[in-house]
Amino acid sequence: MNLHHNDNGWFTEFDLDDRSAFSLEIRERVFCEQSPYQKIEVYDTVNYGKLMVIDGFIMLSSKDNFIYHEMMAHPVLFTHPNPQRVAIIGGGDCGTLREVLKHPEVQQVTQIDIDEVVTQAAEQYFPELCASNKDPRANLLYVDGIEWIKASEAGSLDVIIIDSTDPIGPGEVLYTADFYQACCSALADNGLFIQQSESPIAHMPLIRNMHHRLLEGGFSQPRTLFFPQPVYPTGWWSAAMSAKQALPLDFRQADVARKSFATQYYNEAIHQAALAQPAFFQEALGIPAV
Amino acid sequence: MNLHHNDNGWFTEFDLDDRSAFSLEIRERVFCEQSPYQKIEVYDTVNYGKLMVIDGFIMLSSKDNFIYHEMMAHPVLFTHPNPQRVAIIGGGDCGTLREVLKHPEVQQVTQIDIDEVVTQAAEQYFPELCASNKDPRANLLYVDGIEWIKASEAGSLDVIIIDSTDPIGPGEVLYTADFYQACCSALADNGLFIQQSESPIAHMPLIRNMHHRLLEGGFSQPRTLFFPQPVYPTGWWSAAMSAKQALPLDFRQADVARKSFATQYYNEAIHQAALAQPAFFQEALGIPAV
Repeated sequence: MNLHHNDNGWFTEFDLDDRSAFSLEIRERVFCEQSPYQKIEVYDTVNYGKLMVIDGFIMLSSKDNFIYHEMMAHPVLFTHPNPQRVAIIGGGDCGTLREVLKHPEVQQVTQIDIDEVVTQAAEQYFPELCASNKDPRANLLYVDGIEWIKASEAGSLDVIIIDSTDPIGPGEVLYTADFYQACCSALADNGLFIQQSESPIAHMPLIRNMHHRLLEGGFSQPRTLFFPQPVYPTGWWSAAMSAKQALPLDFRQADVARKSFATQYYNEAIHQAALAQPAFFQEALGIPAV
Repeated sequence: MNLHHNDNGWFTEFDLDDRSAFSLEIRERVFCEQSPYQKIEVYDTVNYGKLMVIDGFIMLSSKDNFIYHEMMAHPVLFTHPNPQRVAIIGGGDCGTLREVLKHPEVQQVTQIDIDEVVTQAAEQYFPELCASNKDPRANLLYVDGIEWIKASEAGSLDVIIIDSTDPIGPGEVLYTADFYQACCSALADNGLFIQQSESPIAHMPLIRNMHHRLLEGGFSQPRTLFFPQPVYPTGWWSAAMSAKQALPLDFRQADVARKSFATQYYNEAIHQAALAQPAFFQEALGIPAV
């Protein structure tokens, strides 16, 4: 549930599970469109650059989206031995797509976001995120992601990234065992999967439920990555990484150390750090203590 | 600079550097006292337990203070080879004190907070944080921390923890080269120092300045620890750790693995993870990339 107001020059998102709210000072709303799926707004903020809001929920800001997008792309791609065929479900702002395309091994990325208006708004207000949209390896589709995954040839993908809205409303179906099963089938035997999994301190029941659904859908025991994300509730976010068979214990550290592209947040130490499981989190999920 | 309001059942802290704000839904204000030094308030919140506010700035909540207090205590204590004599400057809520006293090597902890009202409010509204105040190794003083450090015998401390308010207002003097020099002198040759250093994404100029002042005061090159803290601006926080001579490259990992006490956030992997430096942070401080 969510309410928002933008009076007095501030945009506020209320998290009514967490009973907290986050606000950014804004100059003006520069975009507002009701698509067939959702209401998309863009605000010009005082210190966070542009801010995209969907149905009242903050999606990203120019200032801090680099953390989220890098962490949705690089850890999973550097864990896979040779990621050539990638699908991004959601991700219409194209920030994850841009990060994925930095990997020279990647031969094809299909981004499937149902709502073309999100990408249109991103192209206009977050052009830096859309810098690689014309890469010949990129294929942008505006269709239903679940249907697309279900129609995919079995074993045809190396990595699936679910860069979706929260698991309420339109995003909800992307957190079901049925969807996970379709993802598993579309992945090659050594295929990997990652999905954003909300705040470790505010949304633990959701994370626990999501892990159960992943296992039910045929995935291996998921592993959670942790990273900061100031514009999301509690400022602390997570993603669940899983595998069709078994998650590699390590990642391609040597390749990270000599990567040919720049990052703003991610590096070898940050990859390792993101995998550290806090004590309370291990306990809540029943993971043996380190 | 800071403004706050608590109308409509919400308490809001505005960060007017970051042009952002964080709000918690509250039931009522249960404590308000203007001490000789500052205005101290405690609110009963809907989902974060009690909330202590000083001069309009959020200090801590029952729900998430464990992260901050554990990270101010355990990494520095497990980095020192044998921390026996500890001083905490500030820390009047006694949460850091409680964590420090979990270490069996510690023989004496002096907590020096100028304002006894903070501790009185903590004893009433955060009794769990004050659980170790009567430990015979604990010595609670309500005097000026700078004067106390300056009057300390040279080489008489193993670890100094600065658990202070923000570097504006009364806390400002705790971020000067003059103060750091006095800390250096009070530390034994293998002595270690840690101080909270604000948000890595919102307060980079402050962190850079603080590192310069530490070096000026005679400390070794500081190393930053990163951790989440939902109730602080951006939800992402840091602390700077430094040494009178040189920071050990490693910490007592075996001792962490077999530690005799429970923690909610901290563990061996989290200690390692907190030391990972994000790419933008390394660049801003001129640290060689990993």
